[in-house]
Parts: sequence; C-alpha cells; structure tokens
Amino acid sequence: MKHDVATPERLVVAARKLFADNGFDRASVRAITRAARANLGAITYHFGSKDRLRDEVLARIVGALAARLETVAALPLPATTRVRRIVQSVFEHAAEHPDAPRLLVRFLLHTGRLPAPVLDRQRVLLGSAVRVVQDGIAAGEFRPVDPFLAAFSILSQCIWFHLIRGVAAQINGAALERPEGAAAMADHITDMINRALAPEGAP
Amino acid sequence: MKHDVATPERLVVAARKLFADNGFDRASVRAITRAARANLGAITYHFGSKDRLRDEVLARIVGALAARLETVAALPLPATTRVRRIVQSVFEHAAEHPDAPRLLVRFLLHTGRLPAPVLDRQRVLLGSAVRVVQDGIAAGEFRPVDPFLAAFSILSQCIWFHLIRGVAAQINGAALERPEGAAAMADHITDMINRALAPEGAP
Repeated sequence: MKHDVATPERLVVAARKLFADNGFDRASVRAITRAARANLGAITYHFGSKDRLRDEVLARIVGALAARLETVAALPLPATTRVRRIVQSVFEHAAEHPDAPRLLVRFLLHTGRLPAPVLDRQRVLLGSAVRVVQDGIAAGEFRPVDPFLAAFSILSQCIWFHLIRGVAAQINGAALERPEGAAAMADHITDMINRALAPEGAP
Repeated sequence: MKHDVATPERLVVAARKLFADNGFDRASVRAITRAARANLGAITYHFGSKDRLRDEVLARIVGALAARLETVAALPLPATTRVRRIVQSVFEHAAEHPDAPRLLVRFLLHTGRLPAPVLDRQRVLLGSAVRVVQDGIAAGEFRPVDPFLAAFSILSQCIWFHLIRGVAAQINGAALERPEGAAAMADHITDMINRALAPEGAP
C-alpha cells in the first residue's frame, strides 16, 4: 500500500521537473516513469494519460499560489496593503518555485484552454485579487473601476516579470536577476497599482 | 535567381507557421522544407541551422513591433497620448499577427536568452516605451519614476493579455475574445498607466 500511495506523488514530481526542463512533448512517458522509479504503465494506471498527469501538475502549481493569495485577500488590512501583499506573495511563490511561471505558460501554450480542475484554481487566484479591489472600492480607498481588469493589471505585471526576467536582465542589467532587483520590481508594481486606483482628487 | 531569392522567404513563412502551430521541436526540418517547397538541405544552406532560422523568425516578429513603437514614440504628441498609442500599437499588432505573442513566448521558453539580432530589436521595442516615459517626466507630464520599470508596466500588461486572452475569456466571459473586449482592455491599461504616472498632487 505504501508503494501505491507514493507512486502518483513521485510521478507528479518527476513530470513537473521534466516538463519544466524539456517541455511537455519531449518529456516522454518512458522518461517520466523512469525518473519516478515506476513501471511504464504507471501513468496510465494512476492518471489515465499523460495529458491528465499534466493537468494534475498544473493544478498543483496554480492551486498553491491560489491558496496563498486567498489567505492574503482575506486579511483584515487596508486594500492598499493587501495589494502589496498580493504582489509580494506572487514574487515569493516564484522565488520558491522558479519553474512555476514557465510551467504555467508552457501549459497555456500547449492546451490554449485550461482544464476544469485548473480553471477552478485559476478562478480562486484571480478572484483573490478581484476581492481586494472590490473591498478597496467599497471602503473608498480605490476609485470605481472594473475589478476584473484591475486584478488583471496586478497579476499580469507580476507573472510577466518572472517569465522574462532573464531577458530583462540582458537589456537592463544583471541586478534584475538578483533578489533586490525583484524587490524593486515588486515595490514598483505595488506603487503603480495603488496610484492608478487612488480615488479622484486624492492627495 | 528568382527561385533563390524566394526560398529563404518561403522558409521563414513556413517555419513561423509550424513553430506557432506545433512548437519548435515538433516543427521538423523535413516539415518546414516540405511546406516551403524547398529541398531538405535548404535550411542549412540559407540559414546555417534550424536554430538560426528560428532566430530569424523571432527577429522579424519583434522587429515589426519595434519599428511600429519607434515611430509612435517619436510623434510630436503629449506623453499621455503616446502611451495610448503605444498600447494601441501592441494591440493592433497582435490583432494582425495573432501568432506573434505565442511565438515570442515559445522562443523565450526555448532559449531562455535572446540571440543578438533579436535582442537589438527588443531594445528598440522597450526603448520606445522608455523614451515616452522619459519625455513625459522631462515635460512635467509624469512624476519622476524609473523609465525602465514604467515601460515594463506598459508592455507587460499588453503582451500578457494577448497570451492569456483565451483563459481570461474562460473566466470572465467571451467578450474578452471579441475586438470590443480588447479595446476595453487597451483603454484600461492606458488609463492605469497615465494615472499611475501622474505627478504628485495632479488634479
């Protein structure tokens, strides 16, 4: 039994690493099962197909970040502070899981659409930012704005930065690849969002 | 001679389509040369390798957008208006070349770093947005801010939107996939940027 419980976990870990390193297509069933020390039929047995294993890997990546943002969004803090915490949470998550942004985008490019389990978590992720904006509007901290569009503005800058960080460093200097470069970008994004959402005529 | 002139062009067009549809790895030399009605050695002969052909495809994509933004950045218009035009230009380019954002990101994921010819064009692309921000600061239209970070804020939202438009529509409704959905997003991004860059104490 112990072996049966552990195999799916090992398959997910091995698949995540091989998908991130090589892309979905080049990560063969043979390579994944070998890296997971499982037999060749283990993916089919535990997940049904390599596509379903891919969905599970993506659901975990998005789910981990979504859970983090959901917690932050519910904190009893001013909306401007929670915007900062949302941005910081995405940056912390990317620092702890450097493969996550690339895996997310690889999957998006591969499938175009998100499968249901991933979509549910993506709704929570985006919904957390939406909630902070809505709370801010209700409290008079933010001007009236489409909360979905504002949430998009927050998350798009955070995610794109981690995706193109290497290229940005090629153009604007290696500091962007160091932790202080990321911290400066997180401060900048927070500042841009909170200024852009400030009520009309705010000081 | 006419045939020799046309072959590299046909290879670039065929490779671009196959890279966008199938990814770089699955677009084989055989498939590209067949689609381009060229012989199997044509990629090596004209470009040296499939990697160099990939660089040429990417340089053209980034170069076309960079040329557009460079023109807009030099217009004798207020910086706030040029921010709007920069955003509109990225959206127009993506509407005319729906494969461009995906190809750009596929290449980024594949190589991690940009090759020199692409990097030059990427500098022009980003530099155009930087110039508009710098002009705005100099004219007192914008508050003092790091122009590179502000340029990143403009472009990241535009590019990420086109990359995840299908997923955003899955979450927030199909209107996002229609032209009016894109127009609303372009207006939103422009508004967010110009508000975020407004001088302290601006009305």
